Amino acid sequence: MSTRDNLAEAFAGESQANRKYLAFAKKAEAEGLPQVAKLFRAAAHAETVHAHAHLRAMDGIKSTVDNLKEAIEGEGFEFQKMYPPFLEQAKQEGHRAAENSFKFALAVEEVHHDLYQQALAAVQNGVDLADRPIYVCEVCGNTVYDEAPDKCEVCLVPKDKFTRIA
Amino acid sequence: MSTRDNLAEAFAGESQANRKYLAFAKKAEAEGLPQVAKLFRAAAHAETVHAHAHLRAMDGIKSTVDNLKEAIEGEGFEFQKMYPPFLEQAKQEGHRAAENSFKFALAVEEVHHDLYQQALAAVQNGVDLADRPIYVCEVCGNTVYDEAPDKCEVCLVPKDKFTRIA
Ligand SMILES: [Fe+2]
Ligand SMILES: [Fe+2]
Ligand SMILES: [Fe+2]
Ligand SMILES: [Fe+2]
Ligand SMILES: [Fe+2]
Ligand SMILES: [Fe+2]
Repeated sequence: MSTRDNLAEAFAGESQANRKYLAFAKKAEAEGLPQVAKLFRAAAHAETVHAHAHLRAMDGIKSTVDNLKEAIEGEGFEFQKMYPPFLEQAKQEGHRAAENSFKFALAVEEVHHDLYQQALAAVQNGVDLADRPIYVCEVCGNTVYDEAPDKCEVCLVPKDKFTRIA
Repeated sequence: MSTRDNLAEAFAGESQANRKYLAFAKKAEAEGLPQVAKLFRAAAHAETVHAHAHLRAMDGIKSTVDNLKEAIEGEGFEFQKMYPPFLEQAKQEGHRAAENSFKFALAVEEVHHDLYQQALAAVQNGVDLADRPIYVCEVCGNTVYDEAPDKCEVCLVPKDKFTRIA
C-alpha cells in the first residue's frame, strides 16, 4: 500500500463518516436531542474538511473538463456496470428496500451521465451552460432542468418533493 | 456478495461521488463556470439522496445511543489504527501534503472520539448535551465548544478560520 492508496482509503472513510453523521443528526433531532444533533453536524463538517484535504493531496481535483470526464466515467460505471447486477440480486433476495434504492439510483445516474455530457460539450466549446433552474427529487434524486414535473418520472412522487438547487 | 455487501459498496460510492462533486463545483466556480458548478451541486444533492436511501435500506441508522457507539468505534479506529501507519508512510515517502492531511485528521478524530463519549454519557443518563456553540476549523476540522481559540491547537491558523455550526 502506497500513500496514494492510503489517501484513497482515507477519502472513502471520511466521505462515509460525513454521510452517516448527517443521517445520525436527523435521527437525534427526531429523538428530541438537538444538541447531540448539532455535535453530529459539527463532526460531519470536520469530516468534509478531511475528505477534501485528502482529495487535494491526491491531486483529485483537476480542470473542469477533466472533472466532467471523471464524473461521466463514474456515472457510466454505476448505471451500466454496478447497479444492474445489484438490482437483480436484490430482486432475487426479495430485499424490497434495496431493490427500490438501487432502481432509483440506476435511473438517475443515467440522467446524470447525460447532463454531464452536455456540460462537457459546452465547456469544450469554451462556454458555460445556460442559466436554467435545476430541481432534485428528494425521494429518488432525479435531476431535472427548468421546472419540477407534476409527477417524478423515476419514482412517481408529486412536484412538491422536488428541491430547487441554489 | 450479498445485497448487504452491495448496499455497503453502493453507499461508499455515492458518498465519495457527493464529496467529489462538491469539490468539482468549487473548481468550476473558480474557472468562471457557475452553471456547471450548479449542475455539480445538483448531482451532489442527488447522491446524498442515494447514499441515505442505501443507508436506510441496510438499517444503518439506529437509535442515537447506538449511533453514538458506532461513531465512537469509527473515530477510535481512525485515530488509533488507521491514521498512525498512514502518517508514518507519508513521512517515509516525503509526501508532505498527505503527511499534513493525515496528521490533522488523526488529531481531530481523537477530539471527536472524546466529544462523542461525552454525548453518549449524557444520552445514557436520559439528557441532551448542554446548548453551547460549536466551532469547526476550516483547515484541519478541529471541533471546539464555546468559542474559537485565538490559534487552532491542531493546525495553528487564527480564529477567523473557524466556522460556527448551526
Ligand atoms: Fe475525519
Ligand atoms: Fe449520479
Ligand atoms: Fe423521484
Ligand atoms: Fe447516485
Ligand atoms: Fe471524526
Ligand atoms: Fe485547525
